[in-house]
Amino acid sequence: MSRRGILTVISGFSGSGKGTVVKELIKKYGYVVSVSATTRAPRPGERDGIEYFFVSKDDFLGKIREDGFLEHAEFVGNYYGTPAGYVDEMLNMGKDVILEIEVNGGLQVHEKRPDTVMIFMVPPSAEELKNRLINRGTEDIDKINKRLARAYEETEYIDSYDYIVVNENIEECTESIHDIIVNEKKKIRYNSELKDAIIKDYKRFERR
Amino acid sequence: MSRRGILTVISGFSGSGKGTVVKELIKKYGYVVSVSATTRAPRPGERDGIEYFFVSKDDFLGKIREDGFLEHAEFVGNYYGTPAGYVDEMLNMGKDVILEIEVNGGLQVHEKRPDTVMIFMVPPSAEELKNRLINRGTEDIDKINKRLARAYEETEYIDSYDYIVVNENIEECTESIHDIIVNEKKKIRYNSELKDAIIKDYKRFERR
Repeated sequence: MSRRGILTVISGFSGSGKGTVVKELIKKYGYVVSVSATTRAPRPGERDGIEYFFVSKDDFLGKIREDGFLEHAEFVGNYYGTPAGYVDEMLNMGKDVILEIEVNGGLQVHEKRPDTVMIFMVPPSAEELKNRLINRGTEDIDKINKRLARAYEETEYIDSYDYIVVNENIEECTESIHDIIVNEKKKIRYNSELKDAIIKDYKRFERR
Repeated sequence: MSRRGILTVISGFSGSGKGTVVKELIKKYGYVVSVSATTRAPRPGERDGIEYFFVSKDDFLGKIREDGFLEHAEFVGNYYGTPAGYVDEMLNMGKDVILEIEVNGGLQVHEKRPDTVMIFMVPPSAEELKNRLINRGTEDIDKINKRLARAYEETEYIDSYDYIVVNENIEECTESIHDIIVNEKKKIRYNSELKDAIIKDYKRFERR
């Protein structure tokens, strides 16, 4: 139980189904997600520490200065960020943490924590993504085309990720991501206790 | 089929069962192994290009100078090496190649090909390894202790490997290594065609 958890970033195009897959990963395999900090006011029903950590702008800026975020961004006048302390606490408890985050945030996390497993999710095709957004009926074609243009811009960041996963269907995609994480945990860097035990086990045969 | 294969190095203590596991990987999953070059004379029944590529010392030294080996070593007056050309040919044909190789050779390969998947195999315990070697009855206790001392020295290299696999039993160990390789192949660096296809698919939505 004292083994440290593993940190995974999941990014991907808007409409790739990231949110649904992350919910499945939490439900089926017990992954935990981070709670973000924000300077925006809580909406009715939002609870501090559950939906967000609600903090003042001064506190947020102070925390940026002391390197307290794995990533942060400003969005229409409000700040949003992933508190490093919360994530570390989870990892130290042996929890595997997933951050569902857009590419700029993902790269910030990777810079601060090079051991992060970086996964990029894409829908089966641009055509299917477009149809899905049209059928959803919540956005006009102009907005949909902007989303697709943004997706194209994001392809530039794919090389900064370790894995690419095509979301053909939710269940397969969930399994595929879980497999990736399980496998990454076999890496020696996540198994220093096993390594130390092996070294200790053979030390008595040391040549003198 | 035009997708390039993946190169894996398997190292581990003498007696870890590497050889048996590699044979299983070849038989069950169609991995290919490299044929080494050597300057030693062929033994009766050994065929050039099958057991080894038999080459002259001059040719071997010339090939070292032109960087034609992924790794090489001298052993009791003879040279042994893994020809880069042969391995590349297999990889270009889409074959997944395994090199079963000791730690010094493994590190040389990794230096020349940083993308190599590095796997270190260990027996369940030093005690079990010792008993296995004693029961085999082919070596005296002095030689066995030297092997175990060498194993201890090799623990120093574990950090240069990506994965550590404990060989509790042949079948599980074979599956575990196959899983690792299958998973590594999902990495973006082995899927440039998929990446290029995605970029192309979204390019028509580019903002102008």
